Amino acid sequence: MTSRRALLTGAAAGTAALALAGRRARAAALAPERRIGFALVGIGKLTQGQLIPALRSTKIARLTALVSGHADKAKRVAAAEGVPERSIYSYETFDRLADNPDVDVVYIVLPNSLHAEYTIRAARAGKHVYCEKPMAVTTAECDQMIAASKKAGRQLGIGYRLHFEPYNLELMRIARARELGALKFIAATAGTIPVEPKQWRLDKKLAGGGSMVDIGIYALQAVRYVTGEEPVSVSARATITDRVKFKDIDETLAFSLAFPSGVVASCVSTYAAHVSRVDVATDGGRFGLEPALYYHGIKGFRSDGKPFAFPDIDQFAAEMDDFAACVRDGKPTRVPGEEGLRDVRIIDALYRSAATGRDIKLT
Amino acid sequence: MTSRRALLTGAAAGTAALALAGRRARAAALAPERRIGFALVGIGKLTQGQLIPALRSTKIARLTALVSGHADKAKRVAAAEGVPERSIYSYETFDRLADNPDVDVVYIVLPNSLHAEYTIRAARAGKHVYCEKPMAVTTAECDQMIAASKKAGRQLGIGYRLHFEPYNLELMRIARARELGALKFIAATAGTIPVEPKQWRLDKKLAGGGSMVDIGIYALQAVRYVTGEEPVSVSARATITDRVKFKDIDETLAFSLAFPSGVVASCVSTYAAHVSRVDVATDGGRFGLEPALYYHGIKGFRSDGKPFAFPDIDQFAAEMDDFAACVRDGKPTRVPGEEGLRDVRIIDALYRSAATGRDIKLT
Repeated sequence: MTSRRALLTGAAAGTAALALAGRRARAAALAPERRIGFALVGIGKLTQGQLIPALRSTKIARLTALVSGHADKAKRVAAAEGVPERSIYSYETFDRLADNPDVDVVYIVLPNSLHAEYTIRAARAGKHVYCEKPMAVTTAECDQMIAASKKAGRQLGIGYRLHFEPYNLELMRIARARELGALKFIAATAGTIPVEPKQWRLDKKLAGGGSMVDIGIYALQAVRYVTGEEPVSVSARATITDRVKFKDIDETLAFSLAFPSGVVASCVSTYAAHVSRVDVATDGGRFGLEPALYYHGIKGFRSDGKPFAFPDIDQFAAEMDDFAACVRDGKPTRVPGEEGLRDVRIIDALYRSAATGRDIKLT
Repeated sequence: MTSRRALLTGAAAGTAALALAGRRARAAALAPERRIGFALVGIGKLTQGQLIPALRSTKIARLTALVSGHADKAKRVAAAEGVPERSIYSYETFDRLADNPDVDVVYIVLPNSLHAEYTIRAARAGKHVYCEKPMAVTTAECDQMIAASKKAGRQLGIGYRLHFEPYNLELMRIARARELGALKFIAATAGTIPVEPKQWRLDKKLAGGGSMVDIGIYALQAVRYVTGEEPVSVSARATITDRVKFKDIDETLAFSLAFPSGVVASCVSTYAAHVSRVDVATDGGRFGLEPALYYHGIKGFRSDGKPFAFPDIDQFAAEMDDFAACVRDGKPTRVPGEEGLRDVRIIDALYRSAATGRDIKLT
């Protein structure tokens, strides 16, 4: 891990210099050889449309390897992005990442049911892992992933990009500061329409669930990071209006969560509409976001009319640079495996509630 | 019932003339002696703040009597509104309304737990009844109210003012016409903050429930009139963050309803925040209202950008004129007792769900 060692050597030069370098790192891009190297696993829509473009503007992270089952596609992308051909892997040769010193972080961008296997293999290869949400399909898998990363002495982060997005950070800040008073309830909706009928997201074996694991998880995340609490009880009802498209996964899930403070959240997860809204009611007013979770164009509102506007950023560049900085500095990520596990556990309870028609208590 | 008989005599003059008169009635105010006379029962905030001012601008309805436990207040209001002193009643003399030919409709504006008793007494006095929502505290009471009005051969209407409000009517129209496609889900929130600590709404014996029976009922109504369906299954979770203010009534209720078409609704009823929003997601976009239920200032939105704007109206004048026209013309009201009963039945199921932590099936 050349880049990491180089940074540590630099740190030995003195605390003041390190602090200065740290500050500079946030402002200016590091030279490529000093950056944290990322291997992207899976070259699908998110990788091609978001992660690779993001890695062109990151300041601490850089793309150093690719893993794909499609050799031609991998070669084409590698050539375009300046990744050497020796740093292209297939799923058969995946474990050889262990021998590549240019790879510090393995970013898992695979169908959900493969997250656990490749996270564990990457950890065993001595790599830090950044894994897309949902963390995995079962809580048992999440436990295994956390254990594997711990055993390897490496970090595990989950791709919760909104934890690095200015509007969502401001949402958390307003809530924590009680700027509009004590929280009373939250209404959150998160929805998208999966258009391509053959995509893995519509296949339960690969996705592990439907709208809830894919998009509803953002509503769940929002109510958790707005309250700063963990739900004590949840309930959900599922519905399917399109049985051709949604054979065995949830299309729409109306769910609610009760928090220890007495705040309740009323949420909708859906694959039937493009919706994304977080609406927080307090005893002094309201604030929220709409749209709340898109890659761009997020907007904030607050009932006191105070400004709620930030520059549009590349959320994927922000999340990768942050994880790279954590890896470099040995600081824990704010989106660790434990955070991913919490959501998987709650989603599991929501599905059980929908299946049984009963509230599920969480302790 | 002079005014009513006069109208019926007028009707005998010929169908064409009647149709013309009907059209004119909508445009121009009827002479006072030809109007349908309303007795207002209870001179509280709603009566003084909304109903009496509304009756100054109604065209078919007029104020002809008052019932109150406060003789001084009743006399003052009667004098100001031109109601003769002989048409002031107390709750002891209430049944003498039977002998007042100027009273066609008795409008019950009492605490919820008194709705049944006074509706039944008014029906027995031979009067049509318009009763504020919620219709009553139990479904058994609702049944008795419907039976009493049927037996008396009189109409029973429930004060669902939004059924006469242009934005809410347009909401129903867009949904029915599927102008933005098939309905997928609805998120609705309805909330107000009861400020006066000693009001009957905070007393379970008088109100029969908390936010749900008072304000959440609007969210329930909205999802029912948007879908045009009756829910087959409901669930709710209740929370109280202010135990001093809300001793034994619900402060906030997060509830969901599943409809036969597969549409689900995710709703919040609250006494903890001023909120009022109906958000309908379709496979072609979204439309809704916010604020959705206030007396004035309702606003509409639709994702296709088409206009959704109407003049602000006096909703109470509209509901009373409509009921007056129904009484005059012998046509059924669009807000009959049966409609009130449906909501009371669903709210009862919601409270049972909140108490048991289980979905409640409705058949």
